[in-house]
This record gives sequence, structure tokens and C-alpha cells, in this order.
Amino acid sequence: MRNICLKLAYDGTNYHGFQRQAEAYGPTIQGTLEKVWEKLVKEKVAITMAGRTDAGVHALGQIVNFMTASRIPEEKIPKAFNSLLPKDIRILQAECVPDEFSSRWSAKWKRYDYRIDNKLIPDIFNRLYAAHEPIPLKIDLMQQAALLMEGRHNFKTFAASGGDSKSFERTIYRCQVYEEDNKMIRVSCVGDGFLYHMVRIIVGTLLEVGKGKTLPQKIPEIIASQDRDRARMIAPARGLTLIHVNYSNESPFEIFQDLGSG
Amino acid sequence: MRNICLKLAYDGTNYHGFQRQAEAYGPTIQGTLEKVWEKLVKEKVAITMAGRTDAGVHALGQIVNFMTASRIPEEKIPKAFNSLLPKDIRILQAECVPDEFSSRWSAKWKRYDYRIDNKLIPDIFNRLYAAHEPIPLKIDLMQQAALLMEGRHNFKTFAASGGDSKSFERTIYRCQVYEEDNKMIRVSCVGDGFLYHMVRIIVGTLLEVGKGKTLPQKIPEIIASQDRDRARMIAPARGLTLIHVNYSNESPFEIFQDLGSG
Repeated sequence: MRNICLKLAYDGTNYHGFQRQAEAYGPTIQGTLEKVWEKLVKEKVAITMAGRTDAGVHALGQIVNFMTASRIPEEKIPKAFNSLLPKDIRILQAECVPDEFSSRWSAKWKRYDYRIDNKLIPDIFNRLYAAHEPIPLKIDLMQQAALLMEGRHNFKTFAASGGDSKSFERTIYRCQVYEEDNKMIRVSCVGDGFLYHMVRIIVGTLLEVGKGKTLPQKIPEIIASQDRDRARMIAPARGLTLIHVNYSNESPFEIFQDLGSG
Repeated sequence: MRNICLKLAYDGTNYHGFQRQAEAYGPTIQGTLEKVWEKLVKEKVAITMAGRTDAGVHALGQIVNFMTASRIPEEKIPKAFNSLLPKDIRILQAECVPDEFSSRWSAKWKRYDYRIDNKLIPDIFNRLYAAHEPIPLKIDLMQQAALLMEGRHNFKTFAASGGDSKSFERTIYRCQVYEEDNKMIRVSCVGDGFLYHMVRIIVGTLLEVGKGKTLPQKIPEIIASQDRDRARMIAPARGLTLIHVNYSNESPFEIFQDLGSG
């Protein structure tokens, strides 16, 4: 048996999240990958992913792995997969990794980006890849608030119920807000792990700050409250993209600069 | 009666071009606009557009106009339209214009951009808004060839049959090729008018040059031949976007710099 690791990108618009589930909900990324592998080599496999993505969430650098008895050379795997996958999922790389490697448990940190289209009328080409917010946002206030999200905290305030985490302690290495293009705002979050809906709830709170409804100075108190009622807004799925998963021991601070804007 | 002019953007992926036609072909931009207007004010109108866009072609700055007896204030028109239009069409502006204004015949020049994704594996978020070409293109050769397209020429070589133009003389003020992002190539064409499929056939020829199959020096001879067989490649519709239509007498050379990359 070999342990195969894949890097993949997908447009999550037409998927009901990553995880395999009852067919009634519609196709998932995981189910689609497993079905294509079965077609390719007549073998049922169980695919593990680094970062769970909800329905409608996208990925440019999702990492998955699975054990296989197939002898297909790893360099041929991306092309084989891509020939049968729908156009909104693309395998970017495949690698044979040590048996003990788990895309989920070996991950050191992940980067998720959230894009907000702040134009009055939504940008046609980004309508599926950014959330639309017509109210002009105060980016400087959002930047102040984002800075206060950084660090090791109990993030219970920002965890939706339904997650399976036992601890709410997480480290956010970097939380940055910037205007990447005219009225297109990017929130970039790097952390050692994220709770259920955590990035979308953080962005929901940053949007409240940008609209002037919450003061940036309130963030430490909101975190400390450990009370979901203090952070009720959840930003829509379409704006969120899993950008990168890191497995090395290098500091995210050193690497972060190199990742650019995605 | 008032003459109303609209500026609109659309994702052409799900439309069978701009022009009204037999329902059997599927929805068109023109048909969709006319139906929505009828719903809004119970009036049948005939919409004229500046630049015909084929099935799958997009627009960021299409201009249309129509005569109406309705008294709805022009500043309320974009919101009214957008409330009933599908999300892939957005009205950006509405203006009351002189009766003699025609979005089509009053246009002085237009800008169309064509985007080519030159990565080995297509970029997920651009798969509907760029053509994918995995063969690495020689951009410097494409730039030389593009420069030779500029000027006033008989463009019969680059006109598909099916157009309704009597003359093939057109002026291309500017034809530029550049890498706007890592391996994302943009071809920007500004001209006083374009023949049927002309931009897509020009880009098809530039792609042949980029692959080393046609020498840039051959372009003048290919134009002069007036023979469609010398330019047989037509680039796919999805890469093409109508960016801007100009109605002033200002020189396109002066204005072009301000338009940026779209």
C-alpha cells in the first residue's frame, strides 16, 4: 500500500462541502474524488482532507491523502484524475508520502482568505468568489480589529455549534485586511487550526467593525466573553478560499511573506 | 418618448449571445433585458446594443439604448432592473440621451480584451473568463505580431462569414499583449469597429505566433491576402470581454492609458 497525497483546487459553488455525506444533499468534493478514483483503478478508498470546507467554500491549495494498492505512477495521477473530474475540480500535484503522513493531523498551519466586493453593484466575474457588501467599509478600523484577533486565544466566541473540537484554544499567527484591488477587500487568516465556521464568524465581526457597528477596541472583550452571542454575524461561504496548508516546521511568519496575495 | 441608455456588465457563460433570437437556442442578453423591462413597466421595447457579443462572450461595459414611453426616473432604472435580472447581468448606469443617439451607430471606438490562461493546469476561478492554453506561449513574439495588426487595414482575412458588414476596412488603434498576472496573458484591442469574430480570429492567429507556428513578420502578408484560410484559428468565446465603448471625439490614444487593464 502507498500513501498518496494530492494538492487540489476547486470552485465550491456547486458542491455541498468537502465531506462525503448522504447523496440527498448533493455532490461533495470528497465523494467526487473517491468516485473518480474508483472509476480509474477499480478500488474504493477513503480520502482524508487537511481542511474541511463548507458548502460553497473554495480551495486553491487543499491537501488530501489516501492509501492505495494501485501501482499507477504518482506523476501520472493528476492527469488521470483531471481527465475524469468535472472542470471545477483540478488536481495540481500528486506525491507519494510516508505512511504516517496525514493531510489533516500533520498540518502545522493553514491559510484561509476571505474576499469582500465592496462596490455598490457587484463585480460580475467575482460574484461566486467574493461576498458582496454595498455599504462602504472602513478598512482602517477593520485592520485594527484584525490585529487584535492575532495570538493564542480561546476562540469559543467564534465557533459555530456542530464542530467536533474538544479544545477552543487556537493560535492566529496573522490576520490581515487589505484592499487588493479597487474596492475588493481581502482578509487573510493564518492559524494553527480553525474551529467550525471560525473564519467566517471572524469576518462577520470584522464586517460589523467596518460598518461602524462594533468598535475595534471591543475585540479583546468579545474574544474573552467566550459567548457566541457576541459574534452572531457569519459571512457567506462564497467569499472563503482555503489558500495553503503547511506541513513543515518553518515559522509561518517567515513563510507568510512569500505566499503573496494567493 | 425618451431615449434611455444603459451601461451593463454580464457573464456570458449561460447566454446564447446578445441578440434576440428563436427561444429554441436559449436565453440571450437582449431577450432577457426586454422581458425584464416588460415586467417592470408593461411595455414592449426594442433594445439596440453597441457591440454584438457571441454566445459565451462577456461584457464589463456594454452599452444599449431603447425608446420608452415610461416615466420612471432614470436614476431608479438600474435598481429596478437589477431587482429582476439574474445575478449574471448587472445594470451599472442609466442615462436619458438625445433621441438621435444610437448605442450602435454613435460609437466611436470599442475596446475588447481577451484573456489566456497559460498555466499547465487551468486556474479554477478563471476557467469561465479566460481560454486555457497549456503550451507555453512566447509573449515577445505575440507582442511583435500584435503591433503589426495596428493601423487601418482591410481585415477580410479576420472576418468570419455570417457578418453583415459591407466594407472590411477597419482601424485598430491599439493591439497590446501583456502578462497581467503570473501566466495570465491579456490581449487588448481598441478599434473603430470589429468584423464578425474578428477579435477571436486575431487572437487565434496571435496564439499560433505564440506557439512558434507562424512568424510575426508574416502578419502584414496574412492581412494583405484577404484570405480567411490564412487565419483559420478562432479563439474560444469564453476568453473575450467587451470592456468599453466610447462615444466622444477624444482620441483613443489619449484615453487608452486611463482604462488600465479593465
